[in-house]
Amino acid sequence: MDSIKEYLDKNKDRFLDELVDILKIPSISADPAYKGDMLKAADAVKARLLEAGCDTAEVSPTPGHPVVYAEKIIDKNLPTVLVYGHYDVQPPDPLDLWDSPPFEPVIKETKIHPEGAIFARGSCDDKGQMYMHVKAMEYMTQNDELPCNVKFMIEGEEEVGSEHLDWWIKENKEKLQNDVILISDTGMISKDTPSITTGLRGLSYVEVEVTGANRDLHSGLYGGAVANPLNILSEMIAQLTDENNHISIPGFYDNVENLSDEERSKMAEAPFSLEEYKEKLDIRDVHGEKGYSTLERGSIRPTLDVNGMWGGYIGEGAKTVLPSKAYAKISMRLVPNQDWKEITELFKKHFESLAPDSVKVEVKPHHGGYPYVTPIDTIGYQAASAAYEETFGKTPIPQRSGGSIPIVSLFEKELDSKIILMGFGLDTDAIHSPNEHFGIWNYLKGIETIPWFYKHFTEMSKK
Amino acid sequence: MDSIKEYLDKNKDRFLDELVDILKIPSISADPAYKGDMLKAADAVKARLLEAGCDTAEVSPTPGHPVVYAEKIIDKNLPTVLVYGHYDVQPPDPLDLWDSPPFEPVIKETKIHPEGAIFARGSCDDKGQMYMHVKAMEYMTQNDELPCNVKFMIEGEEEVGSEHLDWWIKENKEKLQNDVILISDTGMISKDTPSITTGLRGLSYVEVEVTGANRDLHSGLYGGAVANPLNILSEMIAQLTDENNHISIPGFYDNVENLSDEERSKMAEAPFSLEEYKEKLDIRDVHGEKGYSTLERGSIRPTLDVNGMWGGYIGEGAKTVLPSKAYAKISMRLVPNQDWKEITELFKKHFESLAPDSVKVEVKPHHGGYPYVTPIDTIGYQAASAAYEETFGKTPIPQRSGGSIPIVSLFEKELDSKIILMGFGLDTDAIHSPNEHFGIWNYLKGIETIPWFYKHFTEMSKK
Repeated sequence: MDSIKEYLDKNKDRFLDELVDILKIPSISADPAYKGDMLKAADAVKARLLEAGCDTAEVSPTPGHPVVYAEKIIDKNLPTVLVYGHYDVQPPDPLDLWDSPPFEPVIKETKIHPEGAIFARGSCDDKGQMYMHVKAMEYMTQNDELPCNVKFMIEGEEEVGSEHLDWWIKENKEKLQNDVILISDTGMISKDTPSITTGLRGLSYVEVEVTGANRDLHSGLYGGAVANPLNILSEMIAQLTDENNHISIPGFYDNVENLSDEERSKMAEAPFSLEEYKEKLDIRDVHGEKGYSTLERGSIRPTLDVNGMWGGYIGEGAKTVLPSKAYAKISMRLVPNQDWKEITELFKKHFESLAPDSVKVEVKPHHGGYPYVTPIDTIGYQAASAAYEETFGKTPIPQRSGGSIPIVSLFEKELDSKIILMGFGLDTDAIHSPNEHFGIWNYLKGIETIPWFYKHFTEMSKK
Repeated sequence: MDSIKEYLDKNKDRFLDELVDILKIPSISADPAYKGDMLKAADAVKARLLEAGCDTAEVSPTPGHPVVYAEKIIDKNLPTVLVYGHYDVQPPDPLDLWDSPPFEPVIKETKIHPEGAIFARGSCDDKGQMYMHVKAMEYMTQNDELPCNVKFMIEGEEEVGSEHLDWWIKENKEKLQNDVILISDTGMISKDTPSITTGLRGLSYVEVEVTGANRDLHSGLYGGAVANPLNILSEMIAQLTDENNHISIPGFYDNVENLSDEERSKMAEAPFSLEEYKEKLDIRDVHGEKGYSTLERGSIRPTLDVNGMWGGYIGEGAKTVLPSKAYAKISMRLVPNQDWKEITELFKKHFESLAPDSVKVEVKPHHGGYPYVTPIDTIGYQAASAAYEETFGKTPIPQRSGGSIPIVSLFEKELDSKIILMGFGLDTDAIHSPNEHFGIWNYLKGIETIPWFYKHFTEMSKK
């Protein structure tokens, strides 16, 4: 396995060029206008997986965007690693805040990434991290270092809630059998402090629509006499949290897992500077639920955020309109043992109850996902930990993340596997934001670390 | 003057065609992209005024959009009527709610307008109503019926707060001297019930910007820990009114003119059906300040409306973003004796005080205008009333409107004139909304009534 560093040195320019080619494809799953690009991205991933040494690969249709599936079975008696990733990306807007176009990747040095970082939508989340696995596979097959079977499942609907994956997994249950599932779609604490994500929050995502009069009205003639959906929606949103930033939806906290004081003090040991955090974000103060620290608010506590809101005149200048409609996209991050379907129902019921008679309200559930926690005493976790030790020279820290990967709890339920989240991104990579980027150092470090996981996992499995 | 009906019959098709030509020009003052069309519209108005019999006409520049000025002085000893109107229009969006393109006028019959109505942005507000005066002028000069001097001042910034008119009026004070100012930029109760607008509300229009972190963030990683500007802006807007829909800005009501019980019961006599009102707007209930009727809420009471609000992801599907910024356009309608500059300051101070330390807030004043009330015992009002009696066979009802025309109080202050608001639009004309239209009957009735005003005003002035 020592040849991995040499292989990386020799091939790193090509590894970057190949990633750049994939990043150029605007595979935005949320927008139907990019359906053709979604297929183009799926085809590219399939081709690269075959080149990397997979025996078979296919673009497998779903009622939405297709899943790319590939595999190399060397011996049925050896363990099988299933790699999951996604080739779809978040919409890039607001476009005017990007320093370079989101689908024209450029490499630039930053303070955190003096070796350079690739700036493009999807560079970190998740094309860059997914492609580390493809290149690790190439190394292992080219150098006779693949110690076990491997399956790839790269989906196209992660950013829209993996809507059809449930169906697809059930359809392909036999084919997907594995001993561990490996995912790189999260981050680590810093380049000096490797970490493995052991917890993810769940998600409930809804869209709400408030309707006043049947048409836009003149605010001079009707203002003050007819309900303004924007004022009303603001008032309704304000009522979703109380003065301590607790969520006011009845029943919302009923099943929330409360950590013990011991667990909370262990969490508090993670390296974290509130001053640095505020400075990086340029905020005078943090903002969150009373009684919890910033780290806790962002990981073990549920949240409610307006992700988008609009209505009325939003162009240049002034228009004295009393709009007919107001809209908001609202998402809630959930923690163990909240059930996203139950929470969505509680939200809907409560939100509708807040509406005065002067408006009509519609709540449309978008999608959701269950929270997940990885046990650290499994072979999967131990193998991952050993792999980081090989390449970072340090034991990684187990860490709960505030993000959500809906697939994770679905995998556990349908395939009865443990999921290992080996993420190589950084907090500062601006995923889901303008100027998303992924450090070249991180990209190469990921490719270097992954084969060690295969080695240790196979060896530990034999014992 | 009896020849006016005959003249209308003979020329009405041409009168319509000429208006259609002007409506085709997208003279949107709020959007800099339409600067060329603004000039095109000004040139067209100038040309039509010369054709209608004015001796001189000019497109007079301002630091913003130009004013069209024209006049015909027949005898310095006779009274002078100054006609005001505007050639700019409101932005047409949301475009997808128009049944036909806003700048491709079409004539269609409606329930209220069986004679047909012209559908186009500006058809009623104010190109259609302004053009009635041009055609009334044509009739009077062609038929030797012009009894006095006339001046026209047609501006291009009414829909953006007449920003440079103050300057322009001061520059042209001598030239603008007059005995009465005549404006058709309001409505009447119904085709059966003529009315003259005797009051207008003032306006304060501001834009607010709430900033959280210095970039859009992933709502999974930062949600719950960092302020969400959309949640915060909603909470701040909710705090601008109380549970009785009173405005909570300290000092806001200090100078509000309170009507006597007698005045309020006189107002309550105006024909109004709450059931019809709700049915037309398709609302289950009205919504407004406790203790006041719908008519009062829309005319004699001040208001606060969010005219537009936006932030975060507003495209198709879902994006789990914690936005960096949230915006709202907010306007307040003011009543006598509120000072819009003072109110704007009160709003700014209060709004800034509502912001928690976790966000930055900016309040940008857009524009404003003073409220106005016309006395009904003036020659101007009496002449207008007599004119309606000639053509409608009924005495018009004096009525307070909820809308604002910032110029009106400016005129009174700078030119020391009384302003007569002879509006021929209807409530249902959808001004500032999609599918704005103006009844052909109303257009022709306006052209018929205006010359009678000149006749009566000149005769009453001689006494």
